[in-house]
Amino acid sequence: MNYTLTQLPERTSKPRQSGLTMVMDKGLSIREVEDFLSTSADHADIIKLGWATSFVTPNLKDKLAVYRSANLPVYFGGTLFEAFVVRNQFDDYRKLLDKYGMEYAEVSDGSIEMAQDEKCEYISKLATQVTVLSEVGSKDEAKIIPPYKWIQLMKAELQAGAWKVIGEAREGGTVGLFRSSGEVRQGLVEEILTQVPFESILWEAPQKEQQVWFVKLLGANVNLGNIAPHEVIPLETIRLGLRGDTFMHFLDK
Amino acid sequence: MNYTLTQLPERTSKPRQSGLTMVMDKGLSIREVEDFLSTSADHADIIKLGWATSFVTPNLKDKLAVYRSANLPVYFGGTLFEAFVVRNQFDDYRKLLDKYGMEYAEVSDGSIEMAQDEKCEYISKLATQVTVLSEVGSKDEAKIIPPYKWIQLMKAELQAGAWKVIGEAREGGTVGLFRSSGEVRQGLVEEILTQVPFESILWEAPQKEQQVWFVKLLGANVNLGNIAPHEVIPLETIRLGLRGDTFMHFLDK
Amino acid sequence: MNYTLTQLPERTSKPRQSGLTMVMDKGLSIREVEDFLSTSADHADIIKLGWATSFVTPNLKDKLAVYRSANLPVYFGGTLFEAFVVRNQFDDYRKLLDKYGMEYAEVSDGSIEMAQDEKCEYISKLATQVTVLSEVGSKDEAKIIPPYKWIQLMKAELQAGAWKVIGEAREGGTVGLFRSSGEVRQGLVEEILTQVPFESILWEAPQKEQQVWFVKLLGANVNLGNIAPHEVIPLETIRLGLRGDTFMHFLDK
Repeated sequence: MNYTLTQLPERTSKPRQSGLTMVMDKGLSIREVEDFLSTSADHADIIKLGWATSFVTPNLKDKLAVYRSANLPVYFGGTLFEAFVVRNQFDDYRKLLDKYGMEYAEVSDGSIEMAQDEKCEYISKLATQVTVLSEVGSKDEAKIIPPYKWIQLMKAELQAGAWKVIGEAREGGTVGLFRSSGEVRQGLVEEILTQVPFESILWEAPQKEQQVWFVKLLGANVNLGNIAPHEVIPLETIRLGLRGDTFMHFLDK
Repeated sequence: MNYTLTQLPERTSKPRQSGLTMVMDKGLSIREVEDFLSTSADHADIIKLGWATSFVTPNLKDKLAVYRSANLPVYFGGTLFEAFVVRNQFDDYRKLLDKYGMEYAEVSDGSIEMAQDEKCEYISKLATQVTVLSEVGSKDEAKIIPPYKWIQLMKAELQAGAWKVIGEAREGGTVGLFRSSGEVRQGLVEEILTQVPFESILWEAPQKEQQVWFVKLLGANVNLGNIAPHEVIPLETIRLGLRGDTFMHFLDK
Repeated sequence: MNYTLTQLPERTSKPRQSGLTMVMDKGLSIREVEDFLSTSADHADIIKLGWATSFVTPNLKDKLAVYRSANLPVYFGGTLFEAFVVRNQFDDYRKLLDKYGMEYAEVSDGSIEMAQDEKCEYISKLATQVTVLSEVGSKDEAKIIPPYKWIQLMKAELQAGAWKVIGEAREGGTVGLFRSSGEVRQGLVEEILTQVPFESILWEAPQKEQQVWFVKLLGANVNLGNIAPHEVIPLETIRLGLRGDTFMHFLDK
């Protein structure tokens, strides 16, 4: 850090198990990745290549190499997994992970219907090959999942071998954990945390208000995801109580 | 593409007559243009230097040269045409196009009143010099154009020599084709398409919801415009049914 | 400028006392700063490193040097000043300014309570060391300051040695000068201007609609702040009447 301030919350350091920031790359150029790394490598823990953007991004191998040189793990968004599964191409997906040397993968069912057993089977299979993040929650606004079901799904997926479970929001932040206004479903989050370990959950929180909400409720070292590359530094200041929104939160009363 | 997926809609390839993506550059630096080209050159068809941003952008010649080296045509936004016309400087505008070696130009009347005959005359004159895109629709929220008038204007402007007619939205996407909520005026679009060829229209659709709406209604190869540079790759995945929003749309039922 | 248009409003030139554009940098990389400077150096007057982003930004010295090489003054956001004050580290803050060779600083009380006398004392002290911008207005939506109080605070802070007073908005533009809808509190602005000199005030106006509003009310050379780096060129066209929103404003009627 560039100077010393007292009364800052303690932040975990890399490699982190909690306090993770997962970043959404939806098509950065290689030079933009370099720019991002030059400012934010220490504050970012894992990169998601959003949904199937990797399909149309040129120089994918080179881009992955740049992230790797900064020791930042990368994974393909869950929608890509679903795109292979819905086409009965799961084996191709496994080969794809190998071809690009991926060490992480996401299992989700945000856009397709999938029985719980089937999803857990995918998690188990992939967990023999890579570290798995699994995502709970639908992208479909009409499909409300009650709290007990969130908990049951999360537990089952962790048991099946997921390293972290992700609480789904869409990129814009309006479904899953959030009401259509973008507001967090507080009761849902609190109930989940009575039964699933804090550090096992990564909450998608693309909007600033959501990030502030999670940091105020769960502290500096909450796992947050779907953060835009240019928002990683602002988020780090929110975690540290150095932005207006959380300014008083960590100070001695 | 980096891997193979079945059941993808067929995309036209460059140079495209339909399936065009028109990108809005509102002041990119030369290095940012290079970054954009390194990821999106294959998915972008034509670049608009937004409204009169070219007036205050330094290194304009160099920037145009970078786009040209990627075979991407560039044109000045219609507001610049209008800025010259309203000052009785149309001849200066024609010289300007020559000075910068422009091969495309836009004729619009979004900010000024212009009789239909006069507009068509501008189109005809410019069509002897460059390829013309003409734009229908007002930037003024109070000025609602009824469907039959949209159709009449579009037909007349194509007849006068326009290569494509553009359905106006503002950069933010709230007037012209869209209600103040950003919602598309569906009846308007459908009525237009009964009488104006699909491939002759380029729909401005800066917001993701609008892009999704047009792709669902008109398919992967609808012409879309005012796309932000960083949204070209996401749009390409929407066209291909590889983002949540259009995920099921192109799959065999 | 790249070409000549008549009937443009006269713009002040650098170094400006009015018509200032203050830019918010919330974590740009050095190469992004270079990109910004290559397009916008002539249209930007002063850079704010937003709130305490400087705490977590690597290569701070190098970054400051790049701005300096373009003769663009830089200052730390007021929230950083407050972060030191609330921890009784004001002397550390003064040393910090020296350590980084800062020539400007902001005094604000957006996140903490501070008596007017105390704030003016901070301004006076810092004014012996650097050029001071002071900020009036709260980040707290519940804390409405009546117009007479805005005027009294602004006058006192200018008297205490502030070079400019800043009318507070948050980055998103929803409190202080603005209603929660983002709409400008017009009566407030007009009343302030009856008693505080136009050129002494810098209005935070991060959203386009706000920028348009101020330019229409106060002309091309109003001081505006919290402008995102990529919005500096668009703002310059708004000032010049070369974007749809202000297109007719400066034309001879």
